[in-house]
Amino acid sequence: MAAAKQVNIAIIGAGGVGKCFLGQLETLAQRRPSPKLVLTYISTSKKAIYNSDYAAIAINDVSSKLASSSQAPLAPPKLIEYLKSSGSKTVLVDNTSSQDVADAYPLFLGNGISIVTPNKKAFSGSYELWQEIFSAAEQSGAKVYHESSVGAGLPVISTLNDLVNTGDEVTKIEGVFSGTMSFLFNSFAPTSGKGGQWSAEVRKAKELGYTEPDPRDDLNGLDVARKLTILARLAGLEVESPTSFPVQSLIPKELESVATGDEFLEKLPAFDSQMEETKAAAEKEGKVVRFVGSIDVASKQVKVGLEKFDLSHPIAALKGSDNIISFYTKRYGSNPLIIQGAGAGGEVTAMGVTSDLIKVLSQVA
Amino acid sequence: MAAAKQVNIAIIGAGGVGKCFLGQLETLAQRRPSPKLVLTYISTSKKAIYNSDYAAIAINDVSSKLASSSQAPLAPPKLIEYLKSSGSKTVLVDNTSSQDVADAYPLFLGNGISIVTPNKKAFSGSYELWQEIFSAAEQSGAKVYHESSVGAGLPVISTLNDLVNTGDEVTKIEGVFSGTMSFLFNSFAPTSGKGGQWSAEVRKAKELGYTEPDPRDDLNGLDVARKLTILARLAGLEVESPTSFPVQSLIPKELESVATGDEFLEKLPAFDSQMEETKAAAEKEGKVVRFVGSIDVASKQVKVGLEKFDLSHPIAALKGSDNIISFYTKRYGSNPLIIQGAGAGGEVTAMGVTSDLIKVLSQVA
Repeated sequence: MAAAKQVNIAIIGAGGVGKCFLGQLETLAQRRPSPKLVLTYISTSKKAIYNSDYAAIAINDVSSKLASSSQAPLAPPKLIEYLKSSGSKTVLVDNTSSQDVADAYPLFLGNGISIVTPNKKAFSGSYELWQEIFSAAEQSGAKVYHESSVGAGLPVISTLNDLVNTGDEVTKIEGVFSGTMSFLFNSFAPTSGKGGQWSAEVRKAKELGYTEPDPRDDLNGLDVARKLTILARLAGLEVESPTSFPVQSLIPKELESVATGDEFLEKLPAFDSQMEETKAAAEKEGKVVRFVGSIDVASKQVKVGLEKFDLSHPIAALKGSDNIISFYTKRYGSNPLIIQGAGAGGEVTAMGVTSDLIKVLSQVA
Repeated sequence: MAAAKQVNIAIIGAGGVGKCFLGQLETLAQRRPSPKLVLTYISTSKKAIYNSDYAAIAINDVSSKLASSSQAPLAPPKLIEYLKSSGSKTVLVDNTSSQDVADAYPLFLGNGISIVTPNKKAFSGSYELWQEIFSAAEQSGAKVYHESSVGAGLPVISTLNDLVNTGDEVTKIEGVFSGTMSFLFNSFAPTSGKGGQWSAEVRKAKELGYTEPDPRDDLNGLDVARKLTILARLAGLEVESPTSFPVQSLIPKELESVATGDEFLEKLPAFDSQMEETKAAAEKEGKVVRFVGSIDVASKQVKVGLEKFDLSHPIAALKGSDNIISFYTKRYGSNPLIIQGAGAGGEVTAMGVTSDLIKVLSQVA
């Protein structure tokens, strides 16, 4: 039994979320003496730190040490060999958004290495990869948790899993799944007051750091489509990919192929009238427009795009860059179970990863 | 290892929540072959079913069999002896609201028997009992989960635990914690329209089955105070009991001692002007009045009573008999993490118990 009380941690990724996670891991390791957490591997895309004798890597200054390390990252097969040879239970924390790492999940899991991650790619890629991941986990008994792949630290995935696993019938899931889209529409079409010009709001969102470097990576709706893919699959739908259902892009056709995000922002004001018309049409009905994703489980319809909402609807009343997710189920009836709050940001995303890690530790240690 | 793949279930209570739980347990046992769930004991306050050879009790018709059983319930020490002698891991499901059963939790837990329950009494009684429960669990390794003790199946306890365990700093918790109070104030002081007379709304709530048999058991605020006690303790405050902080009762002093709930309802209209004044005072400020509980963690202040809210505040905009719980934390900043939905009802309460059971099974099996 004594040997089971140590769990090794391997981390891939030390960017924004990764750095926050390291801080939370350090606190966790200090507060919880059992199981003893031993960091045995950490890598970025270019550097790595690991010891052939599995000596613990100190967490507190690992970010700075990574920069000066002369070790290169191990490719998944080599990394698995290294981690397995330790003889201890290991949890891999993937804090990247890398498709390559995601593609290796079945291999890690099949070799008994549990995974916690905010990486959407593994769960929103091909349905084949999804099946491989969960069947590898089931066969080996390794765990895979990904709370932060939707809504960051908000309890979205765990709540949906609880509903499904206890036998409730989820009929519909609807919500605002993008902090960027939330901010844009809460400013562009507020429930009270006039709201700004569309292109000006996009520029402001970029300046505040709420968008990707090229705002088109938010406006194309793919990020929301990936999250919807994950939730739909958990609700039991065999969604083939995030491009296998209707996703409305807010990028004007004429600007899809301009070279840079800056050029896009310069040319966007010429298309403001389109969004202004959409907003005015909603106002005529006493409503506001919002960018939402929805899953109708019975009819198997998943879609992402603009919808109109009454001013008193919780989706209309959202603030700042908050997410909101409503679960309509048989048990909850006409009033859905609602989760709301910040759905992006380093600390809250890392929180979802850390709470997943605590759940895995309670099961494997 | 083969022996570890069976988990025995013992159930106390087969009332409203208990019956719904039995249905969910039957589905769970069918869907999940591992671990094998074996019902070895079930009791009401007067009857019990158990077999000296631990033969599985069929779940599907247990409610009807209980009524005609000639076995009496075992007192906690005898029950523990019976359950321990099976040699299998056992989870006790307490679907009562009994203080006597709650008082025996440390004994069950100390003997390695895990507990899942919606029973508020164990966690909102004396602080001494709280400490005994969690130290007994820690020493034996048995688990104790009580999601449905606040907000029924809503993920309130698990979310608060995740925030605390990952190192976030919870600064304030605020919300509507009673389905009865929610219904009463959403009807009495709606955000649009005039609303009904206070005494008429109380009568209506009773007729719809939203109140206890004697509505004063809701109006005295104690149910909300118990939930606040639980959340405050989880947030780190050493709250002595649910009567150790200010709780506003909505029972007019003159009606505290009338004999029956019916007599109370007959005499309540004479006191409508008091509530009408409170409502009018809020309206003058453009607000509505709601019955809320709040915990200010820094100043260690817990209180339950009437508060005024802007019409656009999520607490004001609540519908039907929904609960809403807002967690203000360091990581989430000015916009809280919000959980909202039905916080009472047999199926959703049982759902919290069943999802807790699944969590315990993943750890003990």
